Amino acid sequence: MTAPNRATLWGRTLVDELAKSGVTGAIVSPGSRSTPLTVALAEHDDIETFSVLDERSAAFFALGRGRRTGEPTALVCTSGTAAANYHPAVIEANQSRVPLLVLTADRPAELTDSGANQTVDQTKLYGDAVRWYKTLPEPAPEPRRLRSLRVAADRAVAETTGANPGPVHLNFPVAKPLEPTEEPGDVPDSLADEAPLAVEGRDGPFVRTATGRLEPDDAAMDEIAAALESAERGLVVAGPLNPGICDSEAVARLLDATGFPLLADPLSGLRYGPLAADRPVFGGYDSYLDAPGWPDPEVVLRTGASPTSKVLRQFLAEADARQVVVDPAGDWPEAEFTATDYVEADPGAVASALAERVDTTPAADDGPEAAWRERFERAEAAHWSLVDEVAGSAAERSAFEGAVLAEVVASAPDPATVFVSNSMPVRDCDRFGRPRRADLSVLGNRGASGIDGIASTALGAGSATDDPLVVVTGDLAYYHDANGLLSVARCGVDATIVLINNDGGGIFHILPIEEFDPPFTEQFVTPHGLDFEHSADLYDLAFRRATGAEDFAAAYRESLDRDGTQVIEVRTDGEASHRRRERLHERVCERVAEER
Amino acid sequence: MTAPNRATLWGRTLVDELAKSGVTGAIVSPGSRSTPLTVALAEHDDIETFSVLDERSAAFFALGRGRRTGEPTALVCTSGTAAANYHPAVIEANQSRVPLLVLTADRPAELTDSGANQTVDQTKLYGDAVRWYKTLPEPAPEPRRLRSLRVAADRAVAETTGANPGPVHLNFPVAKPLEPTEEPGDVPDSLADEAPLAVEGRDGPFVRTATGRLEPDDAAMDEIAAALESAERGLVVAGPLNPGICDSEAVARLLDATGFPLLADPLSGLRYGPLAADRPVFGGYDSYLDAPGWPDPEVVLRTGASPTSKVLRQFLAEADARQVVVDPAGDWPEAEFTATDYVEADPGAVASALAERVDTTPAADDGPEAAWRERFERAEAAHWSLVDEVAGSAAERSAFEGAVLAEVVASAPDPATVFVSNSMPVRDCDRFGRPRRADLSVLGNRGASGIDGIASTALGAGSATDDPLVVVTGDLAYYHDANGLLSVARCGVDATIVLINNDGGGIFHILPIEEFDPPFTEQFVTPHGLDFEHSADLYDLAFRRATGAEDFAAAYRESLDRDGTQVIEVRTDGEASHRRRERLHERVCERVAEER
Repeated sequence: MTAPNRATLWGRTLVDELAKSGVTGAIVSPGSRSTPLTVALAEHDDIETFSVLDERSAAFFALGRGRRTGEPTALVCTSGTAAANYHPAVIEANQSRVPLLVLTADRPAELTDSGANQTVDQTKLYGDAVRWYKTLPEPAPEPRRLRSLRVAADRAVAETTGANPGPVHLNFPVAKPLEPTEEPGDVPDSLADEAPLAVEGRDGPFVRTATGRLEPDDAAMDEIAAALESAERGLVVAGPLNPGICDSEAVARLLDATGFPLLADPLSGLRYGPLAADRPVFGGYDSYLDAPGWPDPEVVLRTGASPTSKVLRQFLAEADARQVVVDPAGDWPEAEFTATDYVEADPGAVASALAERVDTTPAADDGPEAAWRERFERAEAAHWSLVDEVAGSAAERSAFEGAVLAEVVASAPDPATVFVSNSMPVRDCDRFGRPRRADLSVLGNRGASGIDGIASTALGAGSATDDPLVVVTGDLAYYHDANGLLSVARCGVDATIVLINNDGGGIFHILPIEEFDPPFTEQFVTPHGLDFEHSADLYDLAFRRATGAEDFAAAYRESLDRDGTQVIEVRTDGEASHRRRERLHERVCERVAEER
Repeated sequence: MTAPNRATLWGRTLVDELAKSGVTGAIVSPGSRSTPLTVALAEHDDIETFSVLDERSAAFFALGRGRRTGEPTALVCTSGTAAANYHPAVIEANQSRVPLLVLTADRPAELTDSGANQTVDQTKLYGDAVRWYKTLPEPAPEPRRLRSLRVAADRAVAETTGANPGPVHLNFPVAKPLEPTEEPGDVPDSLADEAPLAVEGRDGPFVRTATGRLEPDDAAMDEIAAALESAERGLVVAGPLNPGICDSEAVARLLDATGFPLLADPLSGLRYGPLAADRPVFGGYDSYLDAPGWPDPEVVLRTGASPTSKVLRQFLAEADARQVVVDPAGDWPEAEFTATDYVEADPGAVASALAERVDTTPAADDGPEAAWRERFERAEAAHWSLVDEVAGSAAERSAFEGAVLAEVVASAPDPATVFVSNSMPVRDCDRFGRPRRADLSVLGNRGASGIDGIASTALGAGSATDDPLVVVTGDLAYYHDANGLLSVARCGVDATIVLINNDGGGIFHILPIEEFDPPFTEQFVTPHGLDFEHSADLYDLAFRRATGAEDFAAAYRESLDRDGTQVIEVRTDGEASHRRRERLHERVCERVAEER
């Protein structure tokens, strides 16, 4: 590690150590104070660098990569409000446990709170939303400081990817010169000889880190397994979980051992893939769990974040059942406060431990266990056949948002990354995105459920693999992160972007405020009348306006076969779509009630 | 004050009290949790409500209104990352002392940190960047709580507009129902009779607040006045100051009494207006203070934030002088650490106090005081004649960014609000925006100097008065807050938007990193190739591409005569413009040296 001055030495050492610790991607926004980091990243062969101009979009792009891969992506910005633009994505990373390594350049200590330009208080800028915060030592050619820099880099990677993954914030104060200009004597020529360990680091990480897995308590497992065994009506419920967090083979063993149905959120990582092909993995529950007479479960095993389905949440809230919440990181994610047991352990390890303990003798075909499962199977059949009917009916299908999501999921390539926006798309994916064997990584920002960084998060996820990328967004989310679309060209990510345009906040039609107009239309729905073809032109994206559901399906399939990025806009009526959702829900409930 | 339920009562009471305390504008972003506030604002006749969809833009819009008027603008958003999108503008408001009243809706206490959807930790979300933070009590029909709500509203307004104006954050937790649905008994019919004061408030504010003005210490004034009187070379330097912060008549008296020149930053509020017509108000200093042999001042009176001009900052840093920094709120804004005196008092009061104390006998026409002032006058004449020459030369003028700013300022209507972006526009305004008698409110976000909310801040400032609005922005800032342009239509603000497009970060040409390519072009200049005509189409703005400086001047003047909003793009060469700035600077220095 040679360097023409101490700032360059600092940047190169930190980046060298991050690369050795396994960081392979960095999102850089242009700025002056961050020059030592930017230069070092651009020089480094093992870190792919993406240049994103809007820091809010940059942070969501990094979040998307981290969500898709489980690996940390570095974020680099200059001092000042640039760092505050990261805040929304940092909060999302915190709440949905995504590794995110934030590196904010800062002015040196003498300039903080001095009135110096572009100098703000960046200390603990994100409050409690990060796993770890550290102000890095200012550059100096001192072996101990250099070693501390390497250790901080390794620790940052370990903290961001630990048992509770999330954001880490390293603040990087540095004085001029920031550029790699030769400053004779600033870094003594003898330093490398005197302190080779500090200057060069080791082969591989300076400190190898090994984070353990939280194994469940044996006594608790014995006791819970007994409860599962004795239950006639058991359920497994998986809320949103990041890819790879829950071992699906262990879940398969648990389902086989217990015979319980799995209600799998579309963001759980369990609704799509091999598990769905030959196990009772269900996704239509939003339509029938509130049907009259649907019985309570006796025991529920839950993991993941709060389910997207409000019907499912209320079902669990009202169930007179033993409810075991499993979480690997102590967050007690259960906002109805009806859980009876809280198990802090790795969900896959819990599934394995329970599967081993439960007696696997099949229940009688005509017993209550079988009846319980068949009830779900019949309801699922009713739900999906009605979805097909609605989606297949050209008259009904013309502008139904649910049919768009049904088609998106059903025709997504195998494998694919499918990113669904908050507000209605994730809810429609939950209701209408039928379980499939295909290897679909269905992702969303469900930690804080914002609509503020959808395009960027999706493109960041898409940048991490060669899988085709499908993005489904409403018009408000599309507008909100329109800047993120610049990453299509600048970061070289291709996508099929499905833009469901109901000209404003269609979601408000599901709320009681609909009855109060004004202010309903002006302050809640907020129709904007934007013609997004201009936005596609700005970012040089192909744009097609689908005139109905069949036209959409054709455009969608064609886009999947093409290179480049296409925006497919489907104009819908937010209110009419909501009425159709309600009607479909009623019909499923009716059919389920008829079958009793 | 009647209300169908407690949430509505809470929203109406808070909004009623804010209006009584003088809040006249609110920026609302659509969301569900904020429904009680949104409904109450929409109902209220005395508060103008603007609907802005992107919360980042919303906050900058509110900042712009506050900056222009000195009065607080309320900001309302839903829970979750929406509030984090306010963070950049909150930091800018903090650092540049702009009133900003942030109201974030939140989930009730039982849902915080429970895994509930769209629930994040909003407590002290902006850290130390706010003057005051308070979690409001949850709605309940209790007289004391209601009174506390009114007092909190009054206090919030007082804190945001106090001696040190800045952001205030009120967090507003509220449980469902959020809509004004009738909940019999939730608000007892008897409440208004039993507690009329709490329910109806008073005529006018519940608590009238009177914030004093910090008067300077007499002994210090005597002593400093003596120093001014005995100095042969004195200066007054005004950095960026919000409109109305510094009494220009008091400054006029000070200039008359001392005979000192005033070096007035374009954002100081003192470069444009009556003071400039008949007092020595100078703006060309960036071109000549570093000329060889320019003498040091003996005494400098400084107020405002750090000056935009680096030449001026270095001149002050290197001056062997008594430097008196005057600041009304104790921030010690002096990052070169050469000040000798720090006076914490109202700048206008200080100017008055010194003017009263200084002997006003005119100095001899051939004395050193006159020579000092004439030196400035000659240098100013040299600077502005060279600016005119460069601006008037069609050949040189074709794409010089400095000439654009010269024209923008020289031809701005009287009165007008002129908003200049950070990065190059504010620097070019500093160098090329000649002092004028016209009532120009020249504004910029110079607290944290970000480029992240320029359009919105400008439009917010424009929304506050009937003055014509001119916005000057570079292409990166234009891109960064392109979402803000939706406010042209949705908030009904007209503007002439001058877009200086040098396809990337032209400012980096003034930094040493220019010598290192790669990564200079790809990571710093970041040419994006965006055709902003599409962006204007998206927002239905007239767009004209000026092909040279004369064409620009014609387009600019034509736009000033028209209604509606026009974007005038001037394509420039960032590097060539920088070379021209350097050459002009050299020529002024040469001419000043010749004249010695």
